[in-house]
Formats: sequence, structure tokens, C-alpha cells
Amino acid sequence: MLFFTQCFGAVLDLIHLRFQHYKAKRVFSAAGQLVCVVNPTHSLKYAPTRCAAAQASTEQGMLPPCHHHEAVHDPQLVPCTCPLFSCPWEGHLEVVVSHLRQTHRINILQGAEIVFLATDMHLPAPTDWIIMHSCLGHQFLLVLRKQEKYEGHPQFFATMMLIGTPSQADNFTYRLELNRNQRRLKWEATPRSILECVDSVISDGDCLVLNTSLAQLFSDNGSLAIGIAITTSKVHSSEAEM
Amino acid sequence: MLFFTQCFGAVLDLIHLRFQHYKAKRVFSAAGQLVCVVNPTHSLKYAPTRCAAAQASTEQGMLPPCHHHEAVHDPQLVPCTCPLFSCPWEGHLEVVVSHLRQTHRINILQGAEIVFLATDMHLPAPTDWIIMHSCLGHQFLLVLRKQEKYEGHPQFFATMMLIGTPSQADNFTYRLELNRNQRRLKWEATPRSILECVDSVISDGDCLVLNTSLAQLFSDNGSLAIGIAITTSKVHSSEAEM
Repeated sequence: MLFFTQCFGAVLDLIHLRFQHYKAKRVFSAAGQLVCVVNPTHSLKYAPTRCAAAQASTEQGMLPPCHHHEAVHDPQLVPCTCPLFSCPWEGHLEVVVSHLRQTHRINILQGAEIVFLATDMHLPAPTDWIIMHSCLGHQFLLVLRKQEKYEGHPQFFATMMLIGTPSQADNFTYRLELNRNQRRLKWEATPRSILECVDSVISDGDCLVLNTSLAQLFSDNGSLAIGIAITTSKVHSSEAEM
Repeated sequence: MLFFTQCFGAVLDLIHLRFQHYKAKRVFSAAGQLVCVVNPTHSLKYAPTRCAAAQASTEQGMLPPCHHHEAVHDPQLVPCTCPLFSCPWEGHLEVVVSHLRQTHRINILQGAEIVFLATDMHLPAPTDWIIMHSCLGHQFLLVLRKQEKYEGHPQFFATMMLIGTPSQADNFTYRLELNRNQRRLKWEATPRSILECVDSVISDGDCLVLNTSLAQLFSDNGSLAIGIAITTSKVHSSEAEM
């Protein structure tokens, strides 16, 4: 009996997912973009010490130490950068992608322009929606986080990190775009390297920030669609610095 | 002696203003846009009852009553819409512009694309920066407000209102753009009519919202430059609704 109940639950989940995917495809069909339905990653535990240590060492020109060791002596080694997971893994930059895919089941999508459809936006903070994005010969990590920076006032933070070094990251520009009900919000910036901690990017507020009310205005039935585009950063070179 | 001190102060203010204007012009000279230096309007007193009443009556399909009277019986009469001023004036839509210019000394600028340079962003909340913008045969009111929606956490809210009716407002799209340090943030929406209260637009969060940290990232020496563009809303008609 339990088996049948579970099967029925799984079928319902599949139908729900299929419906969301269909709806997202319908929305973005005009643009011909790939739509990825991203379910939330529930927080098991924050690991602030890892990130604080990583940030301190990055500021000093060192690579971040793992939270299980005093310091990483091999400059090619990075701790697991998947946010919200207190993962003890550390490894070379080249194998971060396969670790994130295999251990944390994070999907990877191909294409310069994709749509990230985050479901269940109503879930309490902290919650993350994470996906990897492969384009222009590199892999990027998109993190959407719901977090209470000020107690009782959850906000949404979205940023893109390059799975590469900071100097490689400087060659790209990413764009996040929300578009609904005759309102449009666009954020463009240079991605950060995963050697910098996503927590520090969010605490600095150097990312797309949405209040709950604004997130609701852009959401449809509890899902938030974010258009993502990555280009080489030559776009910015002609801009005057202020 | 006091006279000379005051004169010296005034000269220093003029030099400071000229420097800011020159700096802003340098930044936006490539685009050939008109730059307007906007000094903050200090709050004398909030008049929440006026706006609450206005919102309630607008929701009921009525025009907003003035806070000095029970209701406005002439549908052409609107209360003074200049935010943060507890102004008892009320008048016809056609004379709102001259009232704002003459009584509240709000500047009016011509052109489809202008740059709004708000100075002294560090001033404590509540503070407003206000300007009128004339283009496409209509007048618009741009309001940038620093406000503590959550105590101890000031935020910046920017919105554009049409000095006209809601049905006239539906014909336009306004764009606010921040651009600095290889970061760009764009907000596009349909302007609201001044018959709707600016306070309710801000409390709904249906506008460009900046945390203090994000505002600092886009500011230069305490000034925030916002590029403004107004178009007819045909741009949106081809967009798929989500």
C-alpha cells in the first residue's frame, strides 16, 4: 500500500513539474530560450566559518582554506563552493563541476541564454536555488538565495560565479532579467570567481537584490523566472567610468 | 562680518554644485544627455492620512480627497501631490505643474532622456529628491526617496508619476538606469498617475528599490546618477506576459 502511495506521489510530482516546465516554455517560447525548472535546495546548515576564512585569505591574496584544515597549500585546491552545504570536500578547480553535479545533484545547462525558473518562492529563508550554466567555454554557477539579512524581512539575492579564477571572471559579463506585468528589472555585472565566497557577495549586496514585495510582483504562481545571458565583457569597455 | 561669512558659504556651495554638474556632464557626455543636479528636499512632516485616504478612494474608483476636506467633489481637483510636504493646496490637474514649480520650487526639465544626479545620499531618512520631467507632450514627476521601511535599515525608492490620469499613464513606459563600476541596473515600468499616492507605490515596493549597500556601489562621492528615459508603451505590447 505504501509503495502505491509513493508511486502516486511521484506521478503527481512529475505532472506538477511538467506543468511548470510547459508554462515556462510557453512564456519564453518567443525568445526560443532554454527553460530550466529549478527546485529549492534546503539549507542543512550554514558554514560561516568556512566563508569568513575564505574571504580573509582571498583578501590577503591567498586561496581560501577548507573549513576542515588550517590552510590549503596547493593553490589549485578549492573547498566545495556549493552554498548552504557544509560539505567537507576540497579539490582542484577542474573537478569542481563534476563534484557539484555528482555529489550535490546540481544540473548543468548549455547555451548563452537560458531561463532559470525558481519554484516555491514562498519557502522560508534560508533557501537556495542553484544551477550550473555552461557557455563560452566556461562553467558558471547561478545562485538565487532567500535570506533574512534583517530579521523578519527575507530578501532574494541572485548572483553568478565563474568556476574559474578572478582574472578569468573579469572577461565576462552576466545579465539577469526579470520581466512580468509590464515591469522589467535588469542587473548586469562581472561574475565573481568561486574562489570568492558567495556569502560575502550577498552580504556586500553586490548582486541583484529583491524585496519580498518586488519578488512577488515578478513571480507567477510561486515561481520566479530569471532570464540569464552571459557575454564577453567587451560590452563594458566602451562605458565611461563614473 | 556675518554677511561676509554667508557670502563665502554661498560661493563655496556654488563651486561645489558647479563641480558636481561638471563631473556629471563628463560622465554622461558620451550620451549627450542633459544632466540635472537635484538637491534633497528635507521632510517637514509626513502626511500619511492624506495618502491613506487617497489610496482608499482610488481603490474605490474615486478621486483622492484632500486631507483638509472630507472629499473632493470636482473630479478635476487633485490635492498637492508633492511628497513630504504637508501642503493644503488642491487644484485642477492642469495647474499642478505650475503649483509644484512656484510653491515647491521643483525644477522642470525638457527632453526624452535626462540624467538625474541626486546629491548628499548620506543624509538621514526620510529625504526626497524630486524633479519634473517634460517630454512627449506630458509632464512627469520623478521621486527618489530614502526611507526606513524597516527601522534602522534605510532604503532608496525611485519611481516616476505622470501628472495626468491613470489611463494617460498607461500609454508610457519609463526607464531608470544606474551604471557604474561595470555594474548596471535597469528598471522599466508604466508610470503611475499622480492621482495614485507616491507613498502607496513605495510601500507596495512597485518601483526601483536599492539597499544602502547597492546605492553606495552606484554612488560617486555621495551622489547618485540615474539615467531617465520615457517612451510610449508600444515596446511592451509585443512582450509575452508571464
